[in-house]
Amino acid sequence: MLGLRCILLTHFDETFYILAFYYMQIQFLGTSSGTPTKARNVSGLAIKKTNSKSWCLVDCGEGTQHRLLETNLTLKNLQAIFITHIHGDHCYGLPGVLASAAMAGRTAPLWLVAPAKIRSFVEGVIASTELWLNFEIQFVDVAEASSLPADLDFKLEVIQLSHRVPSFGYAFSEKVSGRKLDADQLRKDGVPSGPLWGQLQQGRSVTLDDGRVISGEDYFLPARVSRKIIIAGDNDNPDLLSEAMKNAHVLVHEATYTHDVLEKIGPGPQHSSAKLVADSAEKNELQNLVLTHFSPRYGAQTDSAMSINDIENEARNSYSGHLFLANDLDCFELQTDGSLAKV
Amino acid sequence: MLGLRCILLTHFDETFYILAFYYMQIQFLGTSSGTPTKARNVSGLAIKKTNSKSWCLVDCGEGTQHRLLETNLTLKNLQAIFITHIHGDHCYGLPGVLASAAMAGRTAPLWLVAPAKIRSFVEGVIASTELWLNFEIQFVDVAEASSLPADLDFKLEVIQLSHRVPSFGYAFSEKVSGRKLDADQLRKDGVPSGPLWGQLQQGRSVTLDDGRVISGEDYFLPARVSRKIIIAGDNDNPDLLSEAMKNAHVLVHEATYTHDVLEKIGPGPQHSSAKLVADSAEKNELQNLVLTHFSPRYGAQTDSAMSINDIENEARNSYSGHLFLANDLDCFELQTDGSLAKV
Repeated sequence: MLGLRCILLTHFDETFYILAFYYMQIQFLGTSSGTPTKARNVSGLAIKKTNSKSWCLVDCGEGTQHRLLETNLTLKNLQAIFITHIHGDHCYGLPGVLASAAMAGRTAPLWLVAPAKIRSFVEGVIASTELWLNFEIQFVDVAEASSLPADLDFKLEVIQLSHRVPSFGYAFSEKVSGRKLDADQLRKDGVPSGPLWGQLQQGRSVTLDDGRVISGEDYFLPARVSRKIIIAGDNDNPDLLSEAMKNAHVLVHEATYTHDVLEKIGPGPQHSSAKLVADSAEKNELQNLVLTHFSPRYGAQTDSAMSINDIENEARNSYSGHLFLANDLDCFELQTDGSLAKV
Repeated sequence: MLGLRCILLTHFDETFYILAFYYMQIQFLGTSSGTPTKARNVSGLAIKKTNSKSWCLVDCGEGTQHRLLETNLTLKNLQAIFITHIHGDHCYGLPGVLASAAMAGRTAPLWLVAPAKIRSFVEGVIASTELWLNFEIQFVDVAEASSLPADLDFKLEVIQLSHRVPSFGYAFSEKVSGRKLDADQLRKDGVPSGPLWGQLQQGRSVTLDDGRVISGEDYFLPARVSRKIIIAGDNDNPDLLSEAMKNAHVLVHEATYTHDVLEKIGPGPQHSSAKLVADSAEKNELQNLVLTHFSPRYGAQTDSAMSINDIENEARNSYSGHLFLANDLDCFELQTDGSLAKV
């Protein structure tokens, strides 16, 4: 599932430029709400580009490092951790991940983007359990978007959600390299490949041997649309993601209950039903919706009256796009044409 | 594996006295040192009487609650938690266990016997992650043995060990009800069962109808030897347990490395080799030794040069008693005759 999907080698003068086309990949490390079950761990999700070893972790419930043992992902290649909110089923695996990263010899700094209280949580655990880390944690308060990490594999957007505690969604977009020259057109126009192309790539004007003056600006191809995946934290109001959904290809959102159960429980826990999410996704013409964070009551053997199929059926009733219900270790790839495939 | 092994109903006057014979049971929830592996989780062990639903937990590494899902043990019936020392692989599962106990509706207070810093750890996590518990945690600083819980299923003894941070061993002994009357002898001596026996049981003297004066002290059977299991924390000096081993039936002790690896690594980590533990157990004529807390290097598929058999062979070279190497979810019963059986 990892590795390069396609590599084009283009000969520019004496230099080979490698243009790598990749998929955006997400892998679920936990899909249960609140407590783990035999089949589902609590929240955790890996996101990466298929042509890169580095990856990002969104949420880190207890046992996330155990799930990682079943994947190809390593703590050495972990670039950044994003925590959606402070509830334990989304962050109690952090101390173990940090400790195991240290024991695996990690020395590179690690970004931790999270609500400010996560910093208190982590620093408190480090102090009280004498945890020694041989790498630096670069804390970023999610409320201070200005200081978000610049060297990430993705562009990042933060969306504030509605839950019992401050909760956030993280939208990961491709960093599409701004502008690409139309090599075919350049050749047709008799502009020889070589150092000139480098100057044109920088948008400059150049004078050709025959006296013609041409500008890079006239040879740029239209910019490719950046692929975008939103990973939402716990949230009882999916419409808060409407704006972000407009140019997104995938939304990963909790569907803790079916709507009848949500109404029975009442609004206290501030979770979404499958219907609430599906309605919003349909309204916003979202292409791919992945539901997760299911209450353990669905699929529990002790309660055969409730099944994960109830969640699926309810969502399909409202949503006509591509719907997926995540299982632990499920891996999805967002392809260059914007379609999402389970791999 | 649970349930009553044997019940004797004895007719004393109008009253039935139930004398229940049980085994002492230990079940391993994690047997790896430092980090989890695919086969072994980090430290955790359950101890209970086979005739009781309640149980005690010794150490609580990350993922302990996940292992519990594979047993018959419930967080509702958890009586007390004992933590041997503050290292993460022995305590990072605590927040999740507490949270899941609350979500399962537990309201009964929970004993937590541990080094004082564990209280800071737990209280810090509760505050920073807004964890709401609907039960009280009764913290006991392990250094203050005087305030140890009195209503436990076992008598408790604490042994100070030698590690990088303060580390402790917990010895669990049967509460043998002090003295039992020799009913056969009483009948032979023509002492009729009834209220008189109750007075004799309290050690009093009574006057029989025929004028004889007899004392309960003359009819007590010899006290049965109390079974005792020691669960030791991380420790580089097994001889510190010599005194406790003298009347113990079982010692559970770390054997993180083989001796050659320990010598190569040096004394810094302050762990024991299989040889160190086995030598001490042999010297102290211990009946049953269970080794655990193995470095992930033993049995790792990537390093076929080292196997868990190396640990076993090294221990057998020094120790002539009954030797066991624990695997996750292994369950052992200490029988009334002092023998230990894997069940």
